[in-house]
Amino acid sequence: MKRYEQLVELLAADIRTGLLAPGTRLPSIRTITAQHGLSASTAFKAYYRLEEKGLVRAQPRSGYYVTASAMQQLAAPARGAVDGKAGKMGKAARVAPRPDVSELVFAVLGAAQDPAIVPLGSAFAAPGLFPLQRLGKSLARSSRFIQGPDTVASLPRGDEGLRGQIALRYLAMGMAQPAEELIVTHGALEALNLCLTAVAQPGDLVAVESPGFYASLQALERLKMKALEIPVHPQDGLDLAALADALQRHPVKACWFMTSFQNPTGASLPLEKKKALVALLAARDIPLIEDDVYAELYFGHRGFLPAKAFDRKGLVMHCSSFSKTLAPGYRVGWVSPGRFGQQIERLRLMTTLSASLPAQLAIADYLQYGGYDKHLRKLRHSLESQLSSLLAAIARHFPADVRVSRPAGGYFVWVEFAEGFDALALHQAALEHGIGVAPGPVFSARRNFRHCVRLNYGHPWSDRFEAAMQTLGMLVRQQSPYADAPR
Amino acid sequence: MKRYEQLVELLAADIRTGLLAPGTRLPSIRTITAQHGLSASTAFKAYYRLEEKGLVRAQPRSGYYVTASAMQQLAAPARGAVDGKAGKMGKAARVAPRPDVSELVFAVLGAAQDPAIVPLGSAFAAPGLFPLQRLGKSLARSSRFIQGPDTVASLPRGDEGLRGQIALRYLAMGMAQPAEELIVTHGALEALNLCLTAVAQPGDLVAVESPGFYASLQALERLKMKALEIPVHPQDGLDLAALADALQRHPVKACWFMTSFQNPTGASLPLEKKKALVALLAARDIPLIEDDVYAELYFGHRGFLPAKAFDRKGLVMHCSSFSKTLAPGYRVGWVSPGRFGQQIERLRLMTTLSASLPAQLAIADYLQYGGYDKHLRKLRHSLESQLSSLLAAIARHFPADVRVSRPAGGYFVWVEFAEGFDALALHQAALEHGIGVAPGPVFSARRNFRHCVRLNYGHPWSDRFEAAMQTLGMLVRQQSPYADAPR
Repeated sequence: MKRYEQLVELLAADIRTGLLAPGTRLPSIRTITAQHGLSASTAFKAYYRLEEKGLVRAQPRSGYYVTASAMQQLAAPARGAVDGKAGKMGKAARVAPRPDVSELVFAVLGAAQDPAIVPLGSAFAAPGLFPLQRLGKSLARSSRFIQGPDTVASLPRGDEGLRGQIALRYLAMGMAQPAEELIVTHGALEALNLCLTAVAQPGDLVAVESPGFYASLQALERLKMKALEIPVHPQDGLDLAALADALQRHPVKACWFMTSFQNPTGASLPLEKKKALVALLAARDIPLIEDDVYAELYFGHRGFLPAKAFDRKGLVMHCSSFSKTLAPGYRVGWVSPGRFGQQIERLRLMTTLSASLPAQLAIADYLQYGGYDKHLRKLRHSLESQLSSLLAAIARHFPADVRVSRPAGGYFVWVEFAEGFDALALHQAALEHGIGVAPGPVFSARRNFRHCVRLNYGHPWSDRFEAAMQTLGMLVRQQSPYADAPR
Repeated sequence: MKRYEQLVELLAADIRTGLLAPGTRLPSIRTITAQHGLSASTAFKAYYRLEEKGLVRAQPRSGYYVTASAMQQLAAPARGAVDGKAGKMGKAARVAPRPDVSELVFAVLGAAQDPAIVPLGSAFAAPGLFPLQRLGKSLARSSRFIQGPDTVASLPRGDEGLRGQIALRYLAMGMAQPAEELIVTHGALEALNLCLTAVAQPGDLVAVESPGFYASLQALERLKMKALEIPVHPQDGLDLAALADALQRHPVKACWFMTSFQNPTGASLPLEKKKALVALLAARDIPLIEDDVYAELYFGHRGFLPAKAFDRKGLVMHCSSFSKTLAPGYRVGWVSPGRFGQQIERLRLMTTLSASLPAQLAIADYLQYGGYDKHLRKLRHSLESQLSSLLAAIARHFPADVRVSRPAGGYFVWVEFAEGFDALALHQAALEHGIGVAPGPVFSARRNFRHCVRLNYGHPWSDRFEAAMQTLGMLVRQQSPYADAPR
């Protein structure tokens, strides 16, 4: 056996046993040559051979990744070993593994990394929808203006030009949020985490949506806070009566809600409900962390005002970012912090110091000269048309009694199957067919919504998506609630 | 009185009462016109007048800041008010206020923001020492290569090109740290915080240096962990015998040390002590968070290997960044995480997702084509010559028995005055003269080192620094331990 063939055998064995799981990157050529004392050309030859076999797939500028189907291809010898192991551990056989929520979230995110997986379970929109070239121009232009003193002077709250541009966008929406008060952050995720740390302590009870954004659940888990889940209706959002009741019975320290185009349902609170929410919390002096990252992705003639617009007591921390609308990867978000500005600013100084300056300056330049509103109109149009395609595919391929949310913006729909349906099993089966879906339980601390999935329509529709939906429909009908349903 | 004069009076009153403290930025022209119903030209006229009076100072691209001397200029009417208030509150008169450590840290950082303050207390080097123009060129070049898929593909551990370049720098030092294992972070501060969260829980005991970097103390405070302070000798660093003794008596969960050019002392552990440190911790399986941000700023022929070089068990997390050596404000750091890679990667996904892509690509381009080593040689030479100037000024202006550390790299010296000296009082007095110093107690959870200060030599020496050192010398001699000392 030649040396490259030995390496092929070795790596195939690692794939078979799951040591190199689907979506994992193979070691770099530099590492593998060093580890095995091989020449680079031998290593490349082995990688090409694995690619020919369909076990790995090259990704430009990144490396080789194990394909979703690799394990199946090599499955025969593996099964015995896995069964044997399960038997030894004395566990009853289970069709699908049952990872905990965090593990499941990482598996879902991991699948989104693999370009071979159809990204219906992804949390991102297609990168091609963003004006990356025009942004590059802004980056190049603004790089000439990075002056020495800026690097320190923009420390506390972020670049002043950028904060001015964000304040102008608030003004255009009909809200005055002074540029001086805004704090630019490393994406909305940092803003949300800082807000939470500013207003709640370990052991505190925090109200979140159910189903809700998994990052809020992970943040509470990480910070040893307790989640109080408030139901969300897939159309008009948070159940305010349930919240009012919960506030009366529990010492809720803070709320973390998405009031428009909620992740995962796509639901939006009508204006009157937002007003009522602010009043309800103001009566008890409870801070609201408002996650509004999809605000600009509305489909109607104009966007929805956030709850922040009705905040008179400075209790609402309004968090958003450019990651969903303009510049994924730049990691530029912000918070309009209400009365919590100083705490948030200080927490940030202690944890990440400041947002990255080049990205801030590029976005400030783009907002001023790049045609953001024109880009947004185009993006909204694309998303709305992709939503239509997805809804049509659901109608064509899924059982008739499946319930689907009708979002007025964002890029997620929420699909409810019959009771007894197992979305985790669907997630596993879909992955084996190279298709990602986000199963309901990742959106609940109590792992509810076992019969639901979130689907992403943030990618241009194509035959690939149509075929994936057809396969999903077939997999759905294999489950017992639909086994006898007419096709 | 004209309208602009009314505004001048109003703002002067706010400065007098401390509402607008030295270093604070005045409201922007947009805000002030909206608040007072004035025209922009009236507001500008008022700000120009305040500038003429020396009460504020314009800072390009940023705004108007209250000067350090403004309060003194307006002091006469204020003193009565302040005294009266103190009297009412029934507190004994104290020359200097006694803020807690965090407040003091923020005051020290705040003073560093104000360009009117001589930055001897700063944590930063002069921005002019960095190749910002050449970096701008790398930013412009690399912006053309930001491809859609990158924005998602580089998520988990950072841009692969950058990780490759960092791995090459490790190799040049004689250490193999595979690019695959490195995790690019939002500055070293994020890396350090992630490492700490990965290996310790609230309530756990963490060994830190004393004196030590205040960010480590703040992180422990924020995460409700307990600090065990291990003494540091200003020349050869950490007291290993004290550490060994502490490990025997206390359940230490992790250590957070700077092993080369330590902040604040400038001390470095000799190679043998680093080896012994790693062995000591390995025997007990205790993780070491190694903060090595000044590693490249050595003055001799070559740098010092970090403790990580002797790590065989994957217990050392080696953290560094480009903020001190190349690109302040870009916020790009990294960690070589040893066995804790997966935990750190996941914690990052949950808190800030990823580092900013434009900054990563620009630095990767610069490392490959920009002449980093040439820049570093120049920077080291500048810092070493600035150190000589500072030491000479100390010899000229400070009492003869003052003890001063002799760092072999970095940009801090540690000055020990006689017992009974009050560095907090010096800090206050110096600030009133427009000079910043970093008082000893900010570097200790127990507020020790009351008789010490850290001085920064990261700025080109000039008459301004010479005059500031002369003033400091005068202020030092006003304190009781030196009151009768010969000049």
